[in-house]
Amino acid sequence: MTVSHDSLRTFPVVIEIPVQWGEMDAYGHVNNTVFFRFFESARIAFLERCGFLRSYDEVQIGAILHSTSCRFRLPLLYPDTVLVGARAEAIDFDRFVMEYRVFSTAQNAVAADGEGTVVSFDYRNRSKAELPQMVREGLDALKR
Amino acid sequence: MTVSHDSLRTFPVVIEIPVQWGEMDAYGHVNNTVFFRFFESARIAFLERCGFLRSYDEVQIGAILHSTSCRFRLPLLYPDTVLVGARAEAIDFDRFVMEYRVFSTAQNAVAADGEGTVVSFDYRNRSKAELPQMVREGLDALKR
Amino acid sequence: MTVSHDSLRTFPVVIEIPVQWGEMDAYGHVNNTVFFRFFESARIAFLERCGFLRSYDEVQIGAILHSTSCRFRLPLLYPDTVLVGARAEAIDFDRFVMEYRVFSTAQNAVAADGEGTVVSFDYRNRSKAELPQMVREGLDALKR
Amino acid sequence: MTVSHDSLRTFPVVIEIPVQWGEMDAYGHVNNTVFFRFFESARIAFLERCGFLRSYDEVQIGAILHSTSCRFRLPLLYPDTVLVGARAEAIDFDRFVMEYRVFSTAQNAVAADGEGTVVSFDYRNRSKAELPQMVREGLDALKR
Repeated sequence: MTVSHDSLRTFPVVIEIPVQWGEMDAYGHVNNTVFFRFFESARIAFLERCGFLRSYDEVQIGAILHSTSCRFRLPLLYPDTVLVGARAEAIDFDRFVMEYRVFSTAQNAVAADGEGTVVSFDYRNRSKAELPQMVREGLDALKR
Repeated sequence: MTVSHDSLRTFPVVIEIPVQWGEMDAYGHVNNTVFFRFFESARIAFLERCGFLRSYDEVQIGAILHSTSCRFRLPLLYPDTVLVGARAEAIDFDRFVMEYRVFSTAQNAVAADGEGTVVSFDYRNRSKAELPQMVREGLDALKR
Repeated sequence: MTVSHDSLRTFPVVIEIPVQWGEMDAYGHVNNTVFFRFFESARIAFLERCGFLRSYDEVQIGAILHSTSCRFRLPLLYPDTVLVGARAEAIDFDRFVMEYRVFSTAQNAVAADGEGTVVSFDYRNRSKAELPQMVREGLDALKR
Repeated sequence: MTVSHDSLRTFPVVIEIPVQWGEMDAYGHVNNTVFFRFFESARIAFLERCGFLRSYDEVQIGAILHSTSCRFRLPLLYPDTVLVGARAEAIDFDRFVMEYRVFSTAQNAVAADGEGTVVSFDYRNRSKAELPQMVREGLDALKR
């Protein structure tokens, strides 16, 4: 599933998703909400890789999406297959910023860039929490 | 929320949903998958009314969607508000058939009819189950 | 994109779609509406292969979805990749029935079967139409 | 459709949307992509009110979504009805910023705030364009 491309060289996690015809809206372009579905799929893949899904399973400290944004660069059309990259930046004691990039293989160009702030949350105490050690190590490993 | 209209006279549960612009696809009509979202929303409202959501909470006997279908009659467009009716037919010992109707208020016409077979399932024993007594009574009450 | 599997042997068009995490609903299973998105994606691929998209472009005779249904066999979960097959049956002078099959590679089993009736429509005259000759030939070629 | 609430007092356009059960994801909360559907529906309502849909019809100068963001404040659950407000800020010669607010009536609280930059685009010349005069006047009228 992990595919490499120069625009995505700095993204340790890259997933591949075929565009569905039904994701286009009445303007004949992939609807803006679909880009956030792409981001989400890349985020879930990243959270698995950095240990945050395991952290939730083992100690109920998981990740919450605090905010997210998208800068649309090119309209996407069916048929196409996008590569969606995710990486962590600005790692703080209780949060980090995910950066996303959507690359259109049909157009051989970046279609969108995005961000999402992910906050560590202790589901047992219902409160914010520091990033678990296993997540810190996972983030480090993905940096290298 | 419950609205009445002659085409929906025989539907004891009717919900009202505004069509969203983004539900239209590249043909400029509301995408076919959205009709099944409409059906689902009416089904959930019906399952609450007939006691099936309470049955799940109290004795873990809930409803599973076995199959579903839709007959499209008119294309839907934004702006519009649909009324979606649901009723139970063919009530058997462990299942019943939900019938749905989507009515376009903008076109003053039926846009689609559908069905879904709902099966009773015991989530503790992981097996099919008879319809709980509270659901039978709920279905009776909605018939009257 | 075309993948082969024994359960899909009789389907001339098969597409591959990764399940997205966000397609699961509050029950933790892929939502029922997503199966109709899968069907649609297979239908579009089939309509392209049998010449119906070209027929629309050249003589404005296209395909309309008259009705559709799904029989759910297994709940789908993330992560998974589904193969979705499409074939034409019951070919009549102005319509045919598409049959669909959703195969879960994670579970190595059929997750759903479905149908959709596709009707030929003349967009210039706004009326039903016979299947264009190029579509008949395309359907024949896909049968072999 | 236009509803008023104190948190939305400064939003000249407010739409009302019932939350659908199927919009919740596997975490049991309304999925993050749905907030962008809410924003889109409010944006379309706003663009109609300020004359941008008419401008597109008459002179093919329409609005393009350049970028968008959301700050999630509270998880949304079914059943609920949200009010979604939209207003224009930072009006420049060829663009403005839409601000959105999602208000949960079930929780009587703001569930999310968002933004979107809307750019004027001349579809005949395929180039950026100044905001049409009718849009400027529409924006003024909505400010008052």
